[in-house]
Amino acid sequence: MPFSKQALKELRRLQQKKFREQEKAFLIEGVRLCEEALQAGAALLQVLICPEQMQNDRSQKLIQALTHAAIPVDVIDAAALAALAETQAPQGIVAVVRKHAPKLFEPGKNGDPLLLAIDGIADPGNLGTILRSAEWFGVKNVLLSRDTVELHNPKVVRSSMGSLFRLEVQENLDLAETARHAKAAGWRLIAAEAAHGEPSHRISASGRDLLFIGSEAHGLVTNLAHWIDLRITIPGNGAGESLNAALAAGILLYQLTAPQ
Amino acid sequence: MPFSKQALKELRRLQQKKFREQEKAFLIEGVRLCEEALQAGAALLQVLICPEQMQNDRSQKLIQALTHAAIPVDVIDAAALAALAETQAPQGIVAVVRKHAPKLFEPGKNGDPLLLAIDGIADPGNLGTILRSAEWFGVKNVLLSRDTVELHNPKVVRSSMGSLFRLEVQENLDLAETARHAKAAGWRLIAAEAAHGEPSHRISASGRDLLFIGSEAHGLVTNLAHWIDLRITIPGNGAGESLNAALAAGILLYQLTAPQ
Repeated sequence: MPFSKQALKELRRLQQKKFREQEKAFLIEGVRLCEEALQAGAALLQVLICPEQMQNDRSQKLIQALTHAAIPVDVIDAAALAALAETQAPQGIVAVVRKHAPKLFEPGKNGDPLLLAIDGIADPGNLGTILRSAEWFGVKNVLLSRDTVELHNPKVVRSSMGSLFRLEVQENLDLAETARHAKAAGWRLIAAEAAHGEPSHRISASGRDLLFIGSEAHGLVTNLAHWIDLRITIPGNGAGESLNAALAAGILLYQLTAPQ
Repeated sequence: MPFSKQALKELRRLQQKKFREQEKAFLIEGVRLCEEALQAGAALLQVLICPEQMQNDRSQKLIQALTHAAIPVDVIDAAALAALAETQAPQGIVAVVRKHAPKLFEPGKNGDPLLLAIDGIADPGNLGTILRSAEWFGVKNVLLSRDTVELHNPKVVRSSMGSLFRLEVQENLDLAETARHAKAAGWRLIAAEAAHGEPSHRISASGRDLLFIGSEAHGLVTNLAHWIDLRITIPGNGAGESLNAALAAGILLYQLTAPQ
């Protein structure tokens, strides 16, 4: 069955946040991201391929795995693929993925040693990199404030390198509420601050830490002062300068997962 | 004197690496980067402004500071500015900066505790972020291999947030040569490895460390095996995954500048 213009138009709507929210689905592209989605058990609703761009072994193996998993694979032409894709080199493949409904963070029940909360990060590349680091350091739950960039923004999806398929990420949270509940359930609440906090090298894990990372430009925007137990700062040389927010997050996760 | 089409055309050539190398100059844009360049004493050869986009106090102050420093400021229209700029919001200002001739790394004379060498990083955002982190952690000299992205690539310049005006960055180095000389002069040569190295948490500074960071995709590409004293790895959870190269660099700089 040839792929209709109308069907293509429908899919292209997923390039907009509004329709991603309405349809509870998003687009991914490229061989690697599709492999990651398949491997992580993400709900691939539909896959669109441009066969002449998928001649290499790795791509062929992916197509076999997709059909083996009974995922609908449709053929489209290069122009249609380019219209659906965000990058200049989508490597012959785009897929529609149903959004995963994350396991909710229940402060009284969650037994993880370390959780991450993101407050107002606007840069999609930074959020993606933070998710990738969170996974690297063994964090399973990530909590996003209302004013953080959308989790399914194509740049977040790409820069997370598939981590978003393997993490439980809750969006649109009122982090003050989260902080209040977590505090009541005995979590240690840690805020990353650009200056004047406890030097981070001195901090070790408590076994029940909730780390809040703010935006590059404004730091923590949610008023969490009531609940924060510890403010920490990465010592540096900065005369008015600051570390990139994703870098600060990665370094603090590194510090809080150091063997003791 | 109105700004001629010919003059604009000449300046636009600086958008190409070839001409940046030939002219030993590069373009910067935006109020902040121009402030940073001025403050760091970078050689601003010429500044082009679009006055109607520079009405706010901060921009006005910058213009005053530039004229006070006897830097030639020319007026151009919004279309010309847009043609010169790389970003969509150049904030009314673009400047031509003469490349800084970096202080060369002399292994026998340099008394810094920590230096950074970058081997084959292709992503300009990653290189810029690494420079920013290097400055944060007090590194003064950064050494770039031949196949690392150009230092004056506009994305490197932007993402370095002005750090490249304050660091001594040498380009186009044969890092095997650098390693050989540094080793002979008593430096400890450390290689960041994605896996199988000494866990980084255990490493502390020697007071004379040269840290080599490789590319995200290929790790260290230069053959340094003869000279490396120590291979270190950031412990993680990664099932085939890796940390972003800029993040790995930042974490290792953090570790190697920890108070002892």
